[in-house]
Amino acid sequence: MDKLTLANPLLATYAIAASLMILKVVAMAWLTVWRMMQEKGGYRAPEDLRRTPLNPKPDPVQLAPNERVERIRRIMQNDLENVPFFLAAGFLYVLTQPSLALAQWLLYGYVVSRFLHFLAYATGQIHEVRAATWTAGSLILIYMSASILLAALGS
Amino acid sequence: MDKLTLANPLLATYAIAASLMILKVVAMAWLTVWRMMQEKGGYRAPEDLRRTPLNPKPDPVQLAPNERVERIRRIMQNDLENVPFFLAAGFLYVLTQPSLALAQWLLYGYVVSRFLHFLAYATGQIHEVRAATWTAGSLILIYMSASILLAALGS
Amino acid sequence: MDKLTLANPLLATYAIAASLMILKVVAMAWLTVWRMMQEKGGYRAPEDLRRTPLNPKPDPVQLAPNERVERIRRIMQNDLENVPFFLAAGFLYVLTQPSLALAQWLLYGYVVSRFLHFLAYATGQIHEVRAATWTAGSLILIYMSASILLAALGS
Repeated sequence: MDKLTLANPLLATYAIAASLMILKVVAMAWLTVWRMMQEKGGYRAPEDLRRTPLNPKPDPVQLAPNERVERIRRIMQNDLENVPFFLAAGFLYVLTQPSLALAQWLLYGYVVSRFLHFLAYATGQIHEVRAATWTAGSLILIYMSASILLAALGS
Repeated sequence: MDKLTLANPLLATYAIAASLMILKVVAMAWLTVWRMMQEKGGYRAPEDLRRTPLNPKPDPVQLAPNERVERIRRIMQNDLENVPFFLAAGFLYVLTQPSLALAQWLLYGYVVSRFLHFLAYATGQIHEVRAATWTAGSLILIYMSASILLAALGS
Repeated sequence: MDKLTLANPLLATYAIAASLMILKVVAMAWLTVWRMMQEKGGYRAPEDLRRTPLNPKPDPVQLAPNERVERIRRIMQNDLENVPFFLAAGFLYVLTQPSLALAQWLLYGYVVSRFLHFLAYATGQIHEVRAATWTAGSLILIYMSASILLAALGS
């Protein structure tokens, strides 16, 4: 890979996986906003209790944790613990020149694992189910990172 | 863009926006430290209650949330939910070869949106004002991510 | 650096530092899982109190904060506030074409600072010790970011 262009199939694969993951995380933020509006609560900043057009009847209970909002915040936090590292690892991994098929399995597999994690968490599945989806993604991340390390050390 | 160098104006634009955002987030960490020292509180680790030269009179209340510190932590958390994804998206976006003018509007516009978000949050503006600054940045992030996805799928 | 390949010593240095940091953060996640299994507690999601093969005797106290778990979560949170920005800054920094020796000192120095931070935090050292390890990494991050900004502005 001597040219940095999306015409390179490996880089295009990474760009597809990365943009899907970024949009997924951004969607969590908007879903948090959406649920806060539905619940009229789950806020965090004291100033959000001021009377404004969007909050005509402020109430201190609006600053208490709201489980429907907190659930999305937990999913977002799990994303923060995982996705930024995938974004860096995926890029460096395609620089190690893996086969396109393997790169597609790993990168798209990671994306699928995170979407399944969202489904499992958002619908409150038992821990074992949610953990399985997280583990799949984490193992992919470990494999890619170890591959980068070995390739860089051997270069 | 076949050469990865800051002499490339698109990449230089990204590098300016990215380094400003990184410095912004690092500044939040130092601002948290600064306020913890001013307040002599807002700590989180139990061992921070040990008597040391910097904390000669430990008191359990030092581990309680301190609003002046918590405010900066909330701003930092909002950065964590946004900036890492901008850093990845901005890089891939310039690889899609947009016009320099458009890239500058989007990348510098994002930086401005985050600095305004900081100002709105740090000074306790009403939710509508803070949300407006966040929304501008989020829409830029969505636009760039969708552009990357379409460019990579079409390549 | 006109070719994006790990045969480039600067890029290989970055790839080694980046993959080590990613593996470090992933290790924090697995360490959290490990401690939650040891403590049979420190959970966060209400559904984790359902009776399952891995949790045969659910108890509401399992959702209360558990200090051994919380300690790793605090370390992870500190990673989230630092490492994603190092991953972006390190990459852009090597694009500024520093000397290989300087790049190695900064990038490997950052990795060492974060491993020392982990040791200091995990073993509950006094704040001054933990802060010193964090500060070393933060100063490296600031130096690299400022170098990127100056290089990009001057290009």
